[in-house]
Amino acid sequence: MPIVIRTDTGAIRHLQLNAPDRLNALSDAMLAALQAEFDALMHDRTIRAVILSGAGKAFCAGHDLKEMTAGRQNPDGGGAYFKDLFDRCATLMQTIPRLPQPVIAQVHGIATAAGCQLVATCDLAVAATDTRFGVNGVNIGLFCSTPMVALSRNIPRKQAFEMLTTGQFINAARAADLGLINRAVPPEDLTVETRTLADAIAAKLASAVTIGKQAFYEQIQMPLDRAYAYTGEVMVKNMLDRDTAEGIAAFLEKRAPDWPQD
Amino acid sequence: MPIVIRTDTGAIRHLQLNAPDRLNALSDAMLAALQAEFDALMHDRTIRAVILSGAGKAFCAGHDLKEMTAGRQNPDGGGAYFKDLFDRCATLMQTIPRLPQPVIAQVHGIATAAGCQLVATCDLAVAATDTRFGVNGVNIGLFCSTPMVALSRNIPRKQAFEMLTTGQFINAARAADLGLINRAVPPEDLTVETRTLADAIAAKLASAVTIGKQAFYEQIQMPLDRAYAYTGEVMVKNMLDRDTAEGIAAFLEKRAPDWPQD
Amino acid sequence: MPIVIRTDTGAIRHLQLNAPDRLNALSDAMLAALQAEFDALMHDRTIRAVILSGAGKAFCAGHDLKEMTAGRQNPDGGGAYFKDLFDRCATLMQTIPRLPQPVIAQVHGIATAAGCQLVATCDLAVAATDTRFGVNGVNIGLFCSTPMVALSRNIPRKQAFEMLTTGQFINAARAADLGLINRAVPPEDLTVETRTLADAIAAKLASAVTIGKQAFYEQIQMPLDRAYAYTGEVMVKNMLDRDTAEGIAAFLEKRAPDWPQD
Repeated sequence: MPIVIRTDTGAIRHLQLNAPDRLNALSDAMLAALQAEFDALMHDRTIRAVILSGAGKAFCAGHDLKEMTAGRQNPDGGGAYFKDLFDRCATLMQTIPRLPQPVIAQVHGIATAAGCQLVATCDLAVAATDTRFGVNGVNIGLFCSTPMVALSRNIPRKQAFEMLTTGQFINAARAADLGLINRAVPPEDLTVETRTLADAIAAKLASAVTIGKQAFYEQIQMPLDRAYAYTGEVMVKNMLDRDTAEGIAAFLEKRAPDWPQD
Repeated sequence: MPIVIRTDTGAIRHLQLNAPDRLNALSDAMLAALQAEFDALMHDRTIRAVILSGAGKAFCAGHDLKEMTAGRQNPDGGGAYFKDLFDRCATLMQTIPRLPQPVIAQVHGIATAAGCQLVATCDLAVAATDTRFGVNGVNIGLFCSTPMVALSRNIPRKQAFEMLTTGQFINAARAADLGLINRAVPPEDLTVETRTLADAIAAKLASAVTIGKQAFYEQIQMPLDRAYAYTGEVMVKNMLDRDTAEGIAAFLEKRAPDWPQD
Repeated sequence: MPIVIRTDTGAIRHLQLNAPDRLNALSDAMLAALQAEFDALMHDRTIRAVILSGAGKAFCAGHDLKEMTAGRQNPDGGGAYFKDLFDRCATLMQTIPRLPQPVIAQVHGIATAAGCQLVATCDLAVAATDTRFGVNGVNIGLFCSTPMVALSRNIPRKQAFEMLTTGQFINAARAADLGLINRAVPPEDLTVETRTLADAIAAKLASAVTIGKQAFYEQIQMPLDRAYAYTGEVMVKNMLDRDTAEGIAAFLEKRAPDWPQD
């Protein structure tokens, strides 16, 4: 089996991390396979939503510590390898918000360190109630500095700081309260609930979702005046889309829109 | 009746959107009337708090889709009109944080799309428990790109992203939990509760509230060091205000301050 | 007794504001004593966590209004003194995030105005359930403009704006919900709970916590791409730390790490 299993159901792509014996660690192979999958999605207009899940007992336990430790045998003690590794991981994490499709993390078991970062980085996340989340690298002397980039943009500061410096886990209900995930659902409902969310998004006009997702992450980093100038242009472009004209006309005429179904 | 009804009670101005048959849509006429009201408030020192509400069944249902659709008949397909429309709307939304008076949204029924943006944009918001909030433009192919500027500065990212891409509504209790509104109150208490909040603010020293509101939105966009340098200057100016000197002296002497009542 | 009482227990430094008759106001003397304590911590590698608490009935009631009022007798009406005072206070507030050790506010009674700012500024905060928090300067005509810098970076906008413009207090449960503190605990458990949190952090590899704390506040002000470039470098540096190598090796070998105990 490949290290990332791809399954398409209609316009929804399901990517499953498949290294259960390593708790789906973000090894070199896993990072490469995920990046290849995301790169393939970048220009794919037939897929309208992506679900990311993990095989086995965990969603993802972060970086592959054995592989990283092996890198210390390099003549430079691993410095160049580590730099390259974190560069590849950062590229992956920045690819997700740039994808035209919303990406939903379907989380169970544990999501720790870079695995927790992956949840924070996805546009949306649904988790089983018994999932535990942590940025626990500090417990082994490796502070979760890259995971905190995503974490601290999702949850309040003091709560992020506590997770990062104590290494303690939070449960799914707490993760939902803090904003790290959209909601916690019973384990037996996880697949259906995530799929329902994906279906809801896939039923929208894909071009509008793509325009909106891109604008979401662009505007959030701008001061207010620039954010309005930028999104105003986005709205005009969106209004001039033929399918949007049809969507608005259909609404005013109380009928279903005649939209392209890829 | 005018499209925006103005009523003053003491130092509180109540502005009521009054196009109930259009669910108080932000039509060209509504935007112009609201902008004129806000412009008049900019240099009005007799008004200390503003309440914004809607007549009829809804607070505000966003842009006027019929009017926008009519704009498509222009020779350019509506492009220039849409650009001007979103410019006017963005100016309105950026006028509210610049007003010297706090503006409180008194919300009931529905607040959708640019109507939800209006709630997010007001400094404060009180809503009836049966209010529903949504940024549901995606349902008709028009992603709520400008509303998300305000929304994503009020609530956590994943929750904003879900509302924007699913078009689903949240209720008032959820809106309060997320930070979109200050609180949800029983419908029969909405007017009184909003008024109580306005009264509390109107009882303060108006110059201090005005200084503070301006500083609030300025500093929130600054890095920490500049925010402190800037607000430090604001504090000095505030301390040198004669009425503040009186307020502090009165507090130390355990008496009521002798403050100007406009 | 000194105005700030210092007690070390192992690697934990406890600093107690000790001007109970002034509700531990941030007077000139208090600011100077606190700044001296923090400056001493800047290069102290034996201390791994700091607890900040207040003697008497309150954690801290903000600036010393009597002292500030006395400053008005200066030939310039106090302008130069006030500027210097807010500069010193801003320096203090910006020193806390720059300290190599996490700082935990142990809060009881009241935390108001600059006292509430102090809570918001600490990296972590635990409060007794009967604590009340407020940025109530507006009640005496002095808007809490500098406190809002810290407050508005901890809690959602509308909730911060309400506290600032109404001057109303919130209780500890609400403060925890909003993100102003990490948690509220029964008054009789406050000391033990705060100490437990400090102990958890002090048990980590100090160099990793120091690296991480610095990176936390640096990256949070950066756009996403710069934040990843910066924290990627931090991770490489952290990986190349000899003690981190030992921590990871110990984890893989399922044994306790042999770490330096200062």
